[in-house]
Amino acid sequence: MDKIRVAVVGYGGMGGWHTDRIREMEKFELAGVWDIDPERLTLAEERGIRAYGSFAEVLADESVELLVIATWNDVHKPLCIEAMRAGKNVISEKPVTLSVTDLDDMIAVAKETGKLFTVHQNRRWDDDYLTMKHIRDANQLGKVFRIESRVQGSRGIPGDWRKEKGHGGGMVYDWGVHLLDQALTLCDDDPLISVYAHVTHITNDECDDGFYTELRFRSGLSYMVEVTTNNFITLPRWYILGENGTAVIEDWDLNGKLTLVHDWDKIDSVPVKAGTGITKTMAPRTDETIHDEPLTKVYGRWTQYYDNIFDVIRSGASQTVTHRQMRRCLKLIEAVFRSAETDQVIPFTEDPA
Amino acid sequence: MDKIRVAVVGYGGMGGWHTDRIREMEKFELAGVWDIDPERLTLAEERGIRAYGSFAEVLADESVELLVIATWNDVHKPLCIEAMRAGKNVISEKPVTLSVTDLDDMIAVAKETGKLFTVHQNRRWDDDYLTMKHIRDANQLGKVFRIESRVQGSRGIPGDWRKEKGHGGGMVYDWGVHLLDQALTLCDDDPLISVYAHVTHITNDECDDGFYTELRFRSGLSYMVEVTTNNFITLPRWYILGENGTAVIEDWDLNGKLTLVHDWDKIDSVPVKAGTGITKTMAPRTDETIHDEPLTKVYGRWTQYYDNIFDVIRSGASQTVTHRQMRRCLKLIEAVFRSAETDQVIPFTEDPA
Repeated sequence: MDKIRVAVVGYGGMGGWHTDRIREMEKFELAGVWDIDPERLTLAEERGIRAYGSFAEVLADESVELLVIATWNDVHKPLCIEAMRAGKNVISEKPVTLSVTDLDDMIAVAKETGKLFTVHQNRRWDDDYLTMKHIRDANQLGKVFRIESRVQGSRGIPGDWRKEKGHGGGMVYDWGVHLLDQALTLCDDDPLISVYAHVTHITNDECDDGFYTELRFRSGLSYMVEVTTNNFITLPRWYILGENGTAVIEDWDLNGKLTLVHDWDKIDSVPVKAGTGITKTMAPRTDETIHDEPLTKVYGRWTQYYDNIFDVIRSGASQTVTHRQMRRCLKLIEAVFRSAETDQVIPFTEDPA
Repeated sequence: MDKIRVAVVGYGGMGGWHTDRIREMEKFELAGVWDIDPERLTLAEERGIRAYGSFAEVLADESVELLVIATWNDVHKPLCIEAMRAGKNVISEKPVTLSVTDLDDMIAVAKETGKLFTVHQNRRWDDDYLTMKHIRDANQLGKVFRIESRVQGSRGIPGDWRKEKGHGGGMVYDWGVHLLDQALTLCDDDPLISVYAHVTHITNDECDDGFYTELRFRSGLSYMVEVTTNNFITLPRWYILGENGTAVIEDWDLNGKLTLVHDWDKIDSVPVKAGTGITKTMAPRTDETIHDEPLTKVYGRWTQYYDNIFDVIRSGASQTVTHRQMRRCLKLIEAVFRSAETDQVIPFTEDPA
């Protein structure tokens, strides 16, 4: 097989992940890594990985066809552009860059050079996301009208560059970009109409350490995305409402269930005590009209991401994470920030197809 | 004791609740009921309750000092005004009326006649609400920055006038008014800055059968209120985030707990597998840094509402549910509807104190 040789730029947490994965895959071969931190280079060498002396040296290595850029978010742009101009294909870690204007510059260079330029939206292959997607695609709940997607931590922002605004820190750019990309990918053909958001600054004044956003799509679907980092009890990862049932996916291990109504119209109920009053409206149903079903678990394979990269470079296949999707996601992120700053709903205008 | 004689107008679900309660209390005496439905009057008589022949007959009964108006929402206004003009004190069921303009007319008549005019916001005495309020007031979680208040049913809107827009149906006016009043009462001194909302029409095109709203207060508190009616799995009644902990109150029976962090800064964590990636940020804490505590349960007594009514009428005490609060809550409801209709954040301007 005509393997693709890859250099990884930025040998931190995600850079380490990529190097490990690249060494596992048949279709790829690790050429080496580069990092601005000499200690990381020493560590790479101790692990038997070639440490380049400079970014220029990476670019000058003609055996390298593909670069993975896993640096601080604020330098993705110059590194990606320089790499493409040097004839390299490029995967950027997410977020691909910090603004749509910057992304447009990068896309222009991709078109000019004809090189692959994409972003590592690996969480499109997460089991929990695919399991949620299956619930909707297979119509397990009838028409889905509400999706709530939450990731809740309790440690604030990690204590590195992710705390710093200048490097593109904060939770919108960190976990947010994943959850927002998932929402947009799920609703690829459903125009996004508007965005409401607010951010938190509980443990960090400089960067958002969490955010809540409400997305409204043309189809009528409302989609809530939350990433928070000061939560010591967590709500479920996914909460999905359909006309005929509700689904919960508790966690990444796919604990959860579907509860389906099999006799909607049988609504006679005995009022229950609720605080100082009584309620018929909120009286829970019984197994006379509802029943539980297990989740249909769908398992993703992260290798599909890299398989596509191989096919794009070797056989001219279409890239899975497209420029249009990258631009749509970054437009959404800008809308999230603008909504939070102005306390207004931001109308969303889709790019022409 | 100089008991207060009460007539209940509208002998439906809540009218029945009031008559039963009035018969239990020492300070009050039930004079009788009136309803436009003859069957309800027959039922009242079978239960040994006097059935008035008309609303005029109620008003003409000089022994009656207080009327409880528990009719359709759209006729609270004319009935309350007529009652006050006839020299009666008035408790209206909630919502007191459907618009701020109408409420202003009612308040004007209250001032003109000097009669008690208030609304039955009984859920300020609900155990779950008081337990949540205690968490905040006693600073159990440190500064509270986020409150989520949910009531989720699975039977749609009850199949009576609450389905009809003309009578003031829908969930904003039904459960919404309770949850919104609770939010405003909790934040009595904290100016409400803005309101975002959207409503659902899953089982009813005419009235909202659910809504989601995000309230932002001057103090920085964000407060989410949700009332929904097509949910077959429910999320907790209360979810409360503070700087030093999280609390959950699951239900009206006060199941739940507090989880407190006793060593916030100890955040070293082993990355955990999360889908196709790893995460340190979202790795759960262990009992090295967090611990659980039971809820401090606070029990409310609905009689406090009526005790205050007695004190207002007999001794000129201040009414607990004030005109200012009634107006603030109805302004908020109007903002909820306007936000949902226009898909915009509605800035909220507080009335002068």
